[in-house]
Amino acid sequence: MRYLSRVEVRLKPGYLDPEGESTRRALQDLRYRVRRVGVAKVYEIELTASSLQEARKLTEEMCRKLLSNPVKDDYSFEVRKLGR
Amino acid sequence: MRYLSRVEVRLKPGYLDPEGESTRRALQDLRYRVRRVGVAKVYEIELTASSLQEARKLTEEMCRKLLSNPVKDDYSFEVRKLGR
Repeated sequence: MRYLSRVEVRLKPGYLDPEGESTRRALQDLRYRVRRVGVAKVYEIELTASSLQEARKLTEEMCRKLLSNPVKDDYSFEVRKLGR
Repeated sequence: MRYLSRVEVRLKPGYLDPEGESTRRALQDLRYRVRRVGVAKVYEIELTASSLQEARKLTEEMCRKLLSNPVKDDYSFEVRKLGR
């Protein structure tokens, strides 16, 4: 069966976010009153698995093995079944 | 008052997503049965505005002026008030 995993990867609190900082400065240069900008990445993954439970287990593995850096990233995900 | 805007920027359907494709290949190399991977970016922006309505208007402007490329990106956002 097919599943869609939506994974969000973000820097752990306290880690410098250079892209967020650049974005904050660019917005401030445009005169927006912005205090802070954080950037996260979303992966939408269509995968095949035998059950929702397996799809969740596989997604968790993908996060640990490839999608996130355990030293500096946090991740969270949702998995849902795709129609037939 | 302070608001938190959560903006998601993604490629319009039909645009080639090189980062998603690289990720798909890397996951397939790890033996995962993955059909497709799409990548989107999330900006979390703390801003100052006089009302929720203004915060939404400012966020919409930021999306058009800086955060998205109107040719190839779609965006969506949610805005909420931050405590006191």
